[in-house]
Amino acid sequence: MQRVGSGFTIEIMKLLELAEKTFAVVEQADENVEIASAAGLDIAENGQVTFLANPKYTPQIKTTRASAIFLNENVEPERGDIAVLRAKDAYLAYTRALRIFNPEPEIVPFIHPSAVVHETANVAKDAHISANVVIGANCVVGEKTKILPNVTIYDNAKIGANCTIHSGVSIRENCEIGNRCIVHNNSTIGSDGFGYAKDEEKHWLKIPQTGRVVVEDDVEIGANTAIDCASVGETRIKRGAKIDNLVQIGHSCTIDEDALVCSQTGLAGSSVIGKRVILAGQVGIAGHLKVGDDAVITAKSATSHDVENGKIISGIPAFDNRDWLRSIAAFRRLGEMTRTIRDLEKRIAKMEKDEST
Amino acid sequence: MQRVGSGFTIEIMKLLELAEKTFAVVEQADENVEIASAAGLDIAENGQVTFLANPKYTPQIKTTRASAIFLNENVEPERGDIAVLRAKDAYLAYTRALRIFNPEPEIVPFIHPSAVVHETANVAKDAHISANVVIGANCVVGEKTKILPNVTIYDNAKIGANCTIHSGVSIRENCEIGNRCIVHNNSTIGSDGFGYAKDEEKHWLKIPQTGRVVVEDDVEIGANTAIDCASVGETRIKRGAKIDNLVQIGHSCTIDEDALVCSQTGLAGSSVIGKRVILAGQVGIAGHLKVGDDAVITAKSATSHDVENGKIISGIPAFDNRDWLRSIAAFRRLGEMTRTIRDLEKRIAKMEKDEST
Amino acid sequence: MQRVGSGFTIEIMKLLELAEKTFAVVEQADENVEIASAAGLDIAENGQVTFLANPKYTPQIKTTRASAIFLNENVEPERGDIAVLRAKDAYLAYTRALRIFNPEPEIVPFIHPSAVVHETANVAKDAHISANVVIGANCVVGEKTKILPNVTIYDNAKIGANCTIHSGVSIRENCEIGNRCIVHNNSTIGSDGFGYAKDEEKHWLKIPQTGRVVVEDDVEIGANTAIDCASVGETRIKRGAKIDNLVQIGHSCTIDEDALVCSQTGLAGSSVIGKRVILAGQVGIAGHLKVGDDAVITAKSATSHDVENGKIISGIPAFDNRDWLRSIAAFRRLGEMTRTIRDLEKRIAKMEKDEST
Repeated sequence: MQRVGSGFTIEIMKLLELAEKTFAVVEQADENVEIASAAGLDIAENGQVTFLANPKYTPQIKTTRASAIFLNENVEPERGDIAVLRAKDAYLAYTRALRIFNPEPEIVPFIHPSAVVHETANVAKDAHISANVVIGANCVVGEKTKILPNVTIYDNAKIGANCTIHSGVSIRENCEIGNRCIVHNNSTIGSDGFGYAKDEEKHWLKIPQTGRVVVEDDVEIGANTAIDCASVGETRIKRGAKIDNLVQIGHSCTIDEDALVCSQTGLAGSSVIGKRVILAGQVGIAGHLKVGDDAVITAKSATSHDVENGKIISGIPAFDNRDWLRSIAAFRRLGEMTRTIRDLEKRIAKMEKDEST
Repeated sequence: MQRVGSGFTIEIMKLLELAEKTFAVVEQADENVEIASAAGLDIAENGQVTFLANPKYTPQIKTTRASAIFLNENVEPERGDIAVLRAKDAYLAYTRALRIFNPEPEIVPFIHPSAVVHETANVAKDAHISANVVIGANCVVGEKTKILPNVTIYDNAKIGANCTIHSGVSIRENCEIGNRCIVHNNSTIGSDGFGYAKDEEKHWLKIPQTGRVVVEDDVEIGANTAIDCASVGETRIKRGAKIDNLVQIGHSCTIDEDALVCSQTGLAGSSVIGKRVILAGQVGIAGHLKVGDDAVITAKSATSHDVENGKIISGIPAFDNRDWLRSIAAFRRLGEMTRTIRDLEKRIAKMEKDEST
Repeated sequence: MQRVGSGFTIEIMKLLELAEKTFAVVEQADENVEIASAAGLDIAENGQVTFLANPKYTPQIKTTRASAIFLNENVEPERGDIAVLRAKDAYLAYTRALRIFNPEPEIVPFIHPSAVVHETANVAKDAHISANVVIGANCVVGEKTKILPNVTIYDNAKIGANCTIHSGVSIRENCEIGNRCIVHNNSTIGSDGFGYAKDEEKHWLKIPQTGRVVVEDDVEIGANTAIDCASVGETRIKRGAKIDNLVQIGHSCTIDEDALVCSQTGLAGSSVIGKRVILAGQVGIAGHLKVGDDAVITAKSATSHDVENGKIISGIPAFDNRDWLRSIAAFRRLGEMTRTIRDLEKRIAKMEKDEST
């Protein structure tokens, strides 16, 4: 059911329908209760659904004004006047509710008269091309894709269906973007990799960067991020990977499915990041490495070695996270440790002297 | 008084007037001396005012060709042929002189015919809108605000008076910029925060980012910086904060008044940076933290814990700066320390053996 | 010789001609063999030239399908059915071959009707100005320079001949770009430096940034990089320097000839980087430093001190690379070292006690 508000539609949903759509079960309260939106425990109001995922916030269940709450199994609400939606993963169910109550706006088929679309470009009829967008020769733009103002798409680039390309983005020649991708503002996809050979006079001779970037389906790329084309072949961002703001991805890297690359992380060339890997903020990855599936590199760390599947590593250079935690604890007392060792040396020297006399 | 040069005006000012406008006192020389501009000690010429702030450069007072000099209290010029402007803070007074002699150019009311301004946008009559700017529905642009070419302002954004928005900037839907703000080129304000829930198949499900960014008065934001909107509510940059180039500010953060966030610093989500805090270059701040007023985090450091007011911290992870200085001094000799400990172990083992026999 | 393929020309070259143009010598096989392109050892096909630089890949010589191979002196192919091009530096010769087989496309003289070029700007007749480019008053654009869409060039900027300025770039007022420069997408050249004086109320007062950026010949600048103008005078990037993506160069810095500044490196103000210096990825350089010619600062390192010519340094703060390698090896065992010291203390205390009794 939809009710029309000031210029946009608001979803209103019966509790039972919400439960079905979020794969939850109504455990307590009237299934006909109506929910209009979703909000956090502390700010939710009557008519809203909320959630509890972190046990730290359990006491807030007592005081929330929400009408309904997603709860993980084994968590008791300890009050009867709130609807309980039981879920395997309350946070995930709540995210689904948020997506229901905050749907993406409909794409209105449109080409702004100021857009410069090359005559050979193939733009789907129901795409939305905003003001001052420039689309080069032989480009393809898929159905229901929205391109915001001042975007530049170079020749022979291909963008799939249901994408959103935000203002200021540049997509370079021959690059390919899958379906349902989002690229945030001012990011660059397909700029030249950083490759030079040193000549006889110690000047740098540019190595042609003739490859491209392929971004598969369901990838999101943050703002002001730069992804270099391959020197030869492809830089590839695989299905479902998420790239944050201000990230650098060097030429010929592969980011595998469902990997998370957090803000300001940088990858040199030709590295392969495995499935579901998490590179936390400001991480550095040297060239020609393999980071195994499900590995985690914690924030501000860097590695110049391969990383095994599932490992959690930290530090510069990074090693096992638990060892690193011990090392950094000791590092804080390193000044003191220096003095202790000097003291031990003196005491040993004294004993040695005593012994010899 | 103004004299017109080649296309721009030059301020010429009597020493007395300059002193008044910079809150300084003429202590030596004729108050009718005319000053036309300001320059550093080593390059200043006749007709210019200079300054001494760092005692290291005191000998240069003898050789400067400047006509006048701002001096802190207790600093003697030791020559009589230079006008002395005594100030509580010579550097501040000199900065005021620089601002007098390098005024911002006047804003010429203007809308370039290529600008695409939505019919519902409210642009002040004396604003300056350059070529290829795109301004969305219901936007507000205040008086004497200048928007340079190729800027995109999404629907429902609001920009105050006397701002400068440089070319290539994107300001996303619903965001708000105060008065007298400067946003440098290619920065992004209001891109989506980096938030996902993991679904049953270990794919990332995007959490709607429905909040916005509010930038208060007198904020300056550098080039190629990204400030994410809040997931819900506001990311807020408070009055007088200064943000450098290539900075990442995650969703729902608050940067309090007069904080300095230097280049390439990154903040994960929901952290609160106190008043007058300095985050030096390439600092990392984890999520959900509070950095207290007047704290300083030195360059390349990172913290995943709250920071007390006024603390200076360093390192990854960061701790008290003085302890860190001791630790890094010891770290340089850590290879040697390892050998020392091994040697001590042997000597102790030998003595233990001797003792037992 | 050129053969025309599907829309672009392909170079086909006799082995002897290729050898001459790459300063190599044909050592084995028919000089009339024709080569059409260049590719890596593992993917090269018949009709292609390849190379061996890293001895690790020597076994691949036996299996490559390439028709010719560049080899360093003293490397034997150990098969007679491949043409050998002997070179002093096989990698350099191969790079030259790549450049021959992947020439830059010809610049077509052109000004798109949507470009906004100020009447006082001086654009060379054979320059290529794309859609939605904005060029300010008194600008100069040199011969055969190509400016891609949505670029903004502020007043009084000057761009030399044979440059490529990619989409989304902003070049600020008074800046100057030499000949044969490439600036990748969404970079900013000449934004204000980050300079403030603290006033009596602890607010930051902006110091006017009145200088500019000068980029000399043969410089390449990556995507989403920010180079600040000098506060006074010039920030200067000298001949042949190469700057990667997402780099920050603060006001009044000098990057000397043939320096390499890798991705996400940041320089505070007024530092001087010497000739052929390599700043690896994510390096930090504090203000007012001098990094000597041929020095190398390894990835993720930072320095707040001058660096001698030719030194290789690492760490935060950085010191001699070999010492650092020893320190980080010890750092991994620092938790264990703490326990060892505690154990030694106990054993010494026991012996001291024994001795005194």
